[in-house]
Amino acid sequence: MPPPSTLPAVLAPVITPFQEQHAPDVPRLARQCRWLQANGVGLAVFGTNSEANSMSVRQKRAVLEGLLEAGLPGSQMMPGTGACALDDAIELTAAAVTAGAAGVLMLPPFYYKGVSDDGLFAYYSEVIQAVGDNRLRLYVYNIPPVSQVGLSLSLLERLVSHYPDTVVGIKDSSGDWAYTESVLRQLAPEGFRVYAGNETLLLKTLALGGVGCISATANMHPGPISRLAANPNAVDAEAQQARLDQVRAVFQRHPMIAAMKATVARELRDPHWDRLLPPLVSLSDEQRSALDAALQAIDFSMPGLLEA
Amino acid sequence: MPPPSTLPAVLAPVITPFQEQHAPDVPRLARQCRWLQANGVGLAVFGTNSEANSMSVRQKRAVLEGLLEAGLPGSQMMPGTGACALDDAIELTAAAVTAGAAGVLMLPPFYYKGVSDDGLFAYYSEVIQAVGDNRLRLYVYNIPPVSQVGLSLSLLERLVSHYPDTVVGIKDSSGDWAYTESVLRQLAPEGFRVYAGNETLLLKTLALGGVGCISATANMHPGPISRLAANPNAVDAEAQQARLDQVRAVFQRHPMIAAMKATVARELRDPHWDRLLPPLVSLSDEQRSALDAALQAIDFSMPGLLEA
Repeated sequence: MPPPSTLPAVLAPVITPFQEQHAPDVPRLARQCRWLQANGVGLAVFGTNSEANSMSVRQKRAVLEGLLEAGLPGSQMMPGTGACALDDAIELTAAAVTAGAAGVLMLPPFYYKGVSDDGLFAYYSEVIQAVGDNRLRLYVYNIPPVSQVGLSLSLLERLVSHYPDTVVGIKDSSGDWAYTESVLRQLAPEGFRVYAGNETLLLKTLALGGVGCISATANMHPGPISRLAANPNAVDAEAQQARLDQVRAVFQRHPMIAAMKATVARELRDPHWDRLLPPLVSLSDEQRSALDAALQAIDFSMPGLLEA
Repeated sequence: MPPPSTLPAVLAPVITPFQEQHAPDVPRLARQCRWLQANGVGLAVFGTNSEANSMSVRQKRAVLEGLLEAGLPGSQMMPGTGACALDDAIELTAAAVTAGAAGVLMLPPFYYKGVSDDGLFAYYSEVIQAVGDNRLRLYVYNIPPVSQVGLSLSLLERLVSHYPDTVVGIKDSSGDWAYTESVLRQLAPEGFRVYAGNETLLLKTLALGGVGCISATANMHPGPISRLAANPNAVDAEAQQARLDQVRAVFQRHPMIAAMKATVARELRDPHWDRLLPPLVSLSDEQRSALDAALQAIDFSMPGLLEA
C-alpha cells in the first residue's frame, strides 16, 4: 500500500492566464487557484487544459515558485511534469518535489508513436531514479486521444510492482471505460489512486474504488463537483451528476480551453484571460455569443471568483 | 525570391550518440558530422532521427556550441528548432541564428491535435517576430505521420506571402506525394526550397524543381545520395536510385533509429553508439542479427567513417 495522500478527490488542470508577451501571469493564476482551493478542488497545474506543453520548463518553474510565494500549498498540488525530453521531465519533477508538491502527473513522451512498453517503462524509471527523492509521488497520465501514446495495464502493473511507494496513481483520460474499469479492478484494491479524466465518470469511478476526478471543467464549477465527490451517496446524487454533465456538455461543444478562458474573462471583466498560447486560439465572436447564450440558458455562474 | 543558400542538396538528420547519463556526446557526434560533410551531406542536427525531441533545449544548445567549437560550419547546418513550447522554439531558433546556422527546420507544436491554420500561423509568426533577426531562414517541417499535425498548402502560402525572405523552404515527410507535388508546383517556381523527406523521392523531387532531400539514411551512405543529387541526369541515375532504395529498404525493415545506431556501433566497434533515449530502445539481439545479415547481403559499408 502506498502512503496516504493529502490531495483531494477532485483536482482541476488549472487554466493558465498569459501576459502580452506569452509569459504565464502568476497573480491572475493565483486568484484562480485560491478560488479552486476555497471550493475544495486541488491544483493539477500544468495539465493539458493549462496549456502546459506550450510553456517551457523555465516558465513552469517560475510559475511554481510564484504560486508558493502567493501562499498556495504544495500539499494541494499535482503539477504536470511529463515531457518529451527526459532532461525536462527530470528537472521539472525534481522542482515539484522540492516545492513540496503532494504528487506529480506525468505524461509519457509523446513525439514518437508506436513505442514499446519497455521504452515507456525506461522513461518513467529514469525520471524516478534521477530525481532520487523518496517524497516523489508519481501519477501517470493516460490521454491517448491527445498524446497518441497509451499506457497499457501491464505497463502500469510493472511500474507499480517496481516502484510501489512512488508510482501511486493515474489520471485516465482515455475515454475508454473498459480500460478505466480494468485499472480500477486490478490496481485500486492495492491502494493505487485512480482519477477519472472528467466528472461525467465521477460516480462510476468512486463506485469501483477510484479516488475522484481531475477535470477541466472543475475550473468552471469546482464547488458542485467536489461536493458530489465528498458525498456520492447523497439522495440526490444522480441529479447532481446530471447537473455536472449538463455544464460539461456546454463547454465540450466549444474548443474547451478557449471557452473556459472566455468565461473567466467575462466573469472578471478581464480580457487578459482571453489569451491562449499558439497553436490554440481564442473563441471567435460567433463562438463567444453561442457560449454565452448556452451558459445563460442553464443558469451557469461562478460564485466567489470575483472575490477570490 | 528568397536569398540563395549555402546548404547542400542533401542533409542528414544527424543521429545523436549519448553518454551513460543520457547527455549528448559531442565528440562522437562531431565525428559523424565530419564524415557526412566529407561526403557532401549537410547537417540537419536535431531532427526526428536525432531524437531531438527527447533532448532539452539546454542540451541542444550545448551540442550546437560544441559542434561549432569542433570546427563544424554553421553554413552547412539546418538545426531542428521547433518545439511544443513557444518559449523553447524561440530560444533554440535564436541560438541557431546566432551560431550562424544557414537555416532552421521547424516542426509545428505537436501536442494538441486538430489545431487550426490560424493557430499554426500564429506559432510560426511569434517565433519569427521574437527572434527578430533578418538572418533567419526557416524551413517548415511537415511530418504528420509522427507529429500528427500537418501543414496545409494554404498555410505554407500564407507564411511565404507574409515572410518571403524568412520562410524559405520545407522538409516534407508527409509520405503523400500528391501533397509534395502540389507544394513543388505551387511554390518551387518562386524559389521555395523543397526537400523530400527521404532519398527514394530524390529524382522525382529534383525533376519538379525541388532542391534535394533530408533523409535519415543519409547518415548511413551519404556519398551515394549526394552524388546522385549532384548529377541526376547521369546515364545510370535510375540504377543509382535503385541502389539507394535497396539500402533504405533494409533500414526501414527495423526500428530505423536503433538500426542506424547499431550499424555505426558495429562499424566503429563502439557500443556507446548503441544507446537511445527513452522512449526509444536499442535493437534486440535477434533484430541485430537480422540487420547485420541483410546489410551483408547487399554489400553495405561505410567507407571513411572510422577515419573521420
